[in-house]
Amino acid sequence: MTTHLENTIRSVQPLDEPAMQAARSRQNELTKPPGSLGRLEALSIQIAGITGQPRPTLRRPAIVTLAADHGIARKGVSAFPIEVTAQMVLNFLRGGAGINVLARHIGAEVIVADLGVAVDLPPNDDLIVNKIGYGTRDFSVEPAMTREQARQSIEAGIRIAQAAIARGCDILGTGEMGIGNTTPSSAITAIFTGRPVREVTGRGSGVDDAGLSRKVAVIEAALALHQPNPADGLDVLSKVGGFEIGGLAGVMLGAAAARTPVVVDGFISGAAALIAASLAPAARDYMIAAHRSVEIGHRAIFDYLRLQPLLDLDLRLGEGTGAALGISICQAACKVLDEMATFAEAGVSNKEA
Amino acid sequence: MTTHLENTIRSVQPLDEPAMQAARSRQNELTKPPGSLGRLEALSIQIAGITGQPRPTLRRPAIVTLAADHGIARKGVSAFPIEVTAQMVLNFLRGGAGINVLARHIGAEVIVADLGVAVDLPPNDDLIVNKIGYGTRDFSVEPAMTREQARQSIEAGIRIAQAAIARGCDILGTGEMGIGNTTPSSAITAIFTGRPVREVTGRGSGVDDAGLSRKVAVIEAALALHQPNPADGLDVLSKVGGFEIGGLAGVMLGAAAARTPVVVDGFISGAAALIAASLAPAARDYMIAAHRSVEIGHRAIFDYLRLQPLLDLDLRLGEGTGAALGISICQAACKVLDEMATFAEAGVSNKEA
Repeated sequence: MTTHLENTIRSVQPLDEPAMQAARSRQNELTKPPGSLGRLEALSIQIAGITGQPRPTLRRPAIVTLAADHGIARKGVSAFPIEVTAQMVLNFLRGGAGINVLARHIGAEVIVADLGVAVDLPPNDDLIVNKIGYGTRDFSVEPAMTREQARQSIEAGIRIAQAAIARGCDILGTGEMGIGNTTPSSAITAIFTGRPVREVTGRGSGVDDAGLSRKVAVIEAALALHQPNPADGLDVLSKVGGFEIGGLAGVMLGAAAARTPVVVDGFISGAAALIAASLAPAARDYMIAAHRSVEIGHRAIFDYLRLQPLLDLDLRLGEGTGAALGISICQAACKVLDEMATFAEAGVSNKEA
Repeated sequence: MTTHLENTIRSVQPLDEPAMQAARSRQNELTKPPGSLGRLEALSIQIAGITGQPRPTLRRPAIVTLAADHGIARKGVSAFPIEVTAQMVLNFLRGGAGINVLARHIGAEVIVADLGVAVDLPPNDDLIVNKIGYGTRDFSVEPAMTREQARQSIEAGIRIAQAAIARGCDILGTGEMGIGNTTPSSAITAIFTGRPVREVTGRGSGVDDAGLSRKVAVIEAALALHQPNPADGLDVLSKVGGFEIGGLAGVMLGAAAARTPVVVDGFISGAAALIAASLAPAARDYMIAAHRSVEIGHRAIFDYLRLQPLLDLDLRLGEGTGAALGISICQAACKVLDEMATFAEAGVSNKEA
C-alpha cells in the first residue's frame, strides 16, 4: 500500500518544456527590447512550465500560514515567550497581523492552520485544526517527533494545498508562526547543506549574543546526539524539525504535484523547502523564492537549492509576508506575458528593423 | 520676477521630523519583532516624513511617462530606429506597452505626455502635448537645447506633477520613452558623479560592442566640446540632456514641493534625479528609488544621491515599469504602518515580556 505522501511525491513531474518554449517565443515578440524585463520574463517562463500554460494567469492567490510550537523554545532560544504562537494565531484570525495586511494588499486569502500549537485554540471557522501534537518535544534531549508524526505533518500540508487548489487557488505562498522555529530551521539547514551550525544560525526574532550562543550550542549538541541522515528527509524532520515545517514541506509537494507555483517565504519556509526537495527533487522547479531574509542561514539554502530570491528588503518576520509581495511580482510577470502587445499588433518597428 | 521653476525649488522643504518620529514609534508597537519588516518599515517612516502624516495612505498612484526624441540618436547609439519613440507613445495610449500592464496591475493611471517627439502625433484626449521642440539637437555638434528650453522642459514636468496632485494623485512614479536616451543619461551621470564615461555607459536597448564604443566616444567628445558645469543643472541639461529628462526632473521637483512621494524608475529617471537634486538638494529626500537597472551607470547615480533601490529584477525597459512595482511596495509599507494591530490591541505579549 502506498501512502498519500508517496503518491504525491510520484506525481511531481518535470516542468512543461513546450509551454516554456512558447512563453519564451512570445516574450521576444512583445513591444520591448528582448530581455528588458529581466527576471519578470524568466519568471513568466518558469510559471508557464509549472502550469503547462503558454500564457498562464494567476487570479486567486492564497497564503498558507501554519502554526506550531517547539519544545526547544523552552531552552532560551527565542526573544519571545512561547505563548505568543497562540496569541499570534488569534491575531491572524482577526486580521491584524503583518500577513493579513500584505495579503489584503495583493488580494490573497490567508489560510491559517494549527498543526501543533501547545494549547487548544477557541473554535473558529477560519482556523483549520490538524494538530500533530501539542508542540514538538525538546530536541536537545529527544527527537522532536516520531517518524510517523513527521509523515503526518507533511501529509497535513499536502491536504491543505490540495483543498486550496481544488477551490480554485492558482498560486500558493508559504508562511508560518512558531516561537523558536528558527532553531529547528538552522538545524535542518546545517544538516542538508553541510555548513557549520554557526554559519547558518541567526538571531531569529531578536535574541542577544548570549541567546545566539545558546542556539548554536543547542543545535550542535542535538546534531551530535541524533545524527540525522541528510539522505532521509523524514529522519531529519523527525529529529530536529517542527510540525509547521513539515506542513510547509507538504504544501510545496502538494502544489508541485498539482502543477501550481508555490512562493517560498523566508528562512523557515526555506528549511521546509529543503525537506520537500529531499523527498522530491523535481519539486524544486515549482518553487519561487520570495525574498532574501536577514537570517544568515537563508543564503545557504538558496545556494543549495539553486534558487534566487525576488526581493531583498531585509524582512525577517515570516508569516508569509515576503511570499505575499513575491506573489504580486509573479502576477505582474504573467500579466506582462499575457497582456502586452506584440510588435506586429502595435505596429512598432523591431530592433534594427 | 521669480519663475515657476525658482518658486518650486524654494517650496521644497525638509522632511517632517515629528511625523517620522510618530511613525517610528508606531512601528515599534506593532505585532512583530521590532525592525522585522526591514525596508518596509524604513519606507513607511520616510513617506510619513514626506507627507507630514504619521500614518500616510497612498490610494491614488500615477505614473508620469514622458516622451521625446534625441538628435544624438541619429549617431548610431541605439538598437532601435528613432520612429519607435512615436510608435511606442501610440502603444502607451492603446494600453499595450509594459507600463500599461504594470500600471493596471497596481491600479495606477498612466499620464502620457509628448515633450518633444520628432513628429506630430494624432490628437488624443489622453495625450498631453507640450512639445519643447521636435527632438533635441545632436549634442555631438551643438548643445542639445537652449537654456530657455531646458527651463521650459522642467517647468512642463512641474505642471504635469502639480495637475496630477491637484486631481488627487498621492504618489507619482516617473517613466520615459525616447530612442537614444540612455546616451544623454550617461553623459549627465558622468558630469555630476565625475566618473569616467565608459564606467557609466551601457548597452541601452541593446547595442552591440561597436554601438557601445560609439556611445562612449560620442559622449566623451561632447563633454570636451561643451564643458558642462556640474554646479549648474540647467547648463548640463541644455548641453547634453533631453526634453523628457528635463520634464522628469520637473516631475520630481513638483512632487517634492507638494510633499508627495515620487518613485524614480530606472537609469534615465536617475539622470533626471541628478538634475533635480542639483537644482534643489532637499528634493532628494522625496525620491524613492524603485529598482537597480541593468544599465551600468545606475549604480553611480545611487552612490552619488545616496539612494538604495527597492528592487533588483534586472529590468532595463524604462517607461516607468520599475516605478510601478516600486509604488506597490510603498503602498504595502504604508498599509503595514496603518493597518497592523499593536501588541496592546491584539493582546500579544511583547518581546521578553
